[in-house]
Amino acid sequence: MNILHIDSSPRGERSHSRALTHAFVEQLKASHSDLSVSYRDLGHAPVPHVDEAWIKSAYSDPSERTDVDKQAIAFSDELVDELLAADIIVLGAPMYNFSIPSTLKAYIDQVVRVGRTFTYPDYEGLATGKKMFILCARGGGGYAPGEPMHDSNFQDPYFKTIFGLIGISYVYDEKTLSGQDDLDASKAEARELAGTVA
Amino acid sequence: MNILHIDSSPRGERSHSRALTHAFVEQLKASHSDLSVSYRDLGHAPVPHVDEAWIKSAYSDPSERTDVDKQAIAFSDELVDELLAADIIVLGAPMYNFSIPSTLKAYIDQVVRVGRTFTYPDYEGLATGKKMFILCARGGGGYAPGEPMHDSNFQDPYFKTIFGLIGISYVYDEKTLSGQDDLDASKAEARELAGTVA
Repeated sequence: MNILHIDSSPRGERSHSRALTHAFVEQLKASHSDLSVSYRDLGHAPVPHVDEAWIKSAYSDPSERTDVDKQAIAFSDELVDELLAADIIVLGAPMYNFSIPSTLKAYIDQVVRVGRTFTYPDYEGLATGKKMFILCARGGGGYAPGEPMHDSNFQDPYFKTIFGLIGISYVYDEKTLSGQDDLDASKAEARELAGTVA
Repeated sequence: MNILHIDSSPRGERSHSRALTHAFVEQLKASHSDLSVSYRDLGHAPVPHVDEAWIKSAYSDPSERTDVDKQAIAFSDELVDELLAADIIVLGAPMYNFSIPSTLKAYIDQVVRVGRTFTYPDYEGLATGKKMFILCARGGGGYAPGEPMHDSNFQDPYFKTIFGLIGISYVYDEKTLSGQDDLDASKAEARELAGTVA
């Protein structure tokens, strides 16, 4: 079973989302002997923003790409290969300014790829057969559906839209959420959630 | 009158959002003799992602910041000064993967600053007395309120939330929107919108 573990917080020891993903993956390791874990640290080793050469190449016919075109998306191809090889994706995502960190948006822009993770014009997801667990951290509460801040939540509703596009169903547990004060409880929830992985 | 003109598309000549902001600013220049225009090109000269040193410094008491702390937010301070000095902000923003480009999110994370652009814990916006015109580009339609894709629109609803937090009221004209085929019409709309600036 291939695990892709992604952290996106720029913080280290003080990051709540990292604490949650690490608790989750440790629990997975404890209950499965056949795990292969890849780790991608977007917070400390950001991937590049897409640029014009990337866009030209990614939206061109693969058979017509020049060497320059291929080079422009070579790293994106690596990131897509890594994503497609995973059975389970564990993503740690803090809320920054009601949305996701810019490092995580840069990653998403690299892996949402026509012909590789979705089809055009049918918009069929190609990253199927995997499960994603997103462990969110937020400084405050009230962002769940029906709660007062839900209209200002551009974090987990966005994940549903964008990862849904590429065919990844994702598991998000509102309880597995770190506010300022309940990190230990959230870590216990993360371990419990990891225990549900068959 | 101080204008801050911001482009966020990684593309150049082929960018629709750039074409719109340039049409808007040209029209402003044609009808006002007293303009001072600052230009910030996030697409071609991205600002850094916030990092742990930035976060430590930005959320600390200004009187207790070390020289290292001050250095960590020096560029953010410049960006905030530039924003606060503007009477009119013209922002070009393409939709990327239902949201904003990672370069624009990096900028937002740099300028949403406690004590400088909003107060805590009152969340009072401090970037008041200005007007922002956001000229969006999207590859397709149906993202307006009541339309089928509105739930997947994490672009202009996000602007309302995040720029509202820092006290900027913004003008967004659904017509001034570039789809694939109507760039000339959108540019005409942008010029018309610029003509409403007193």
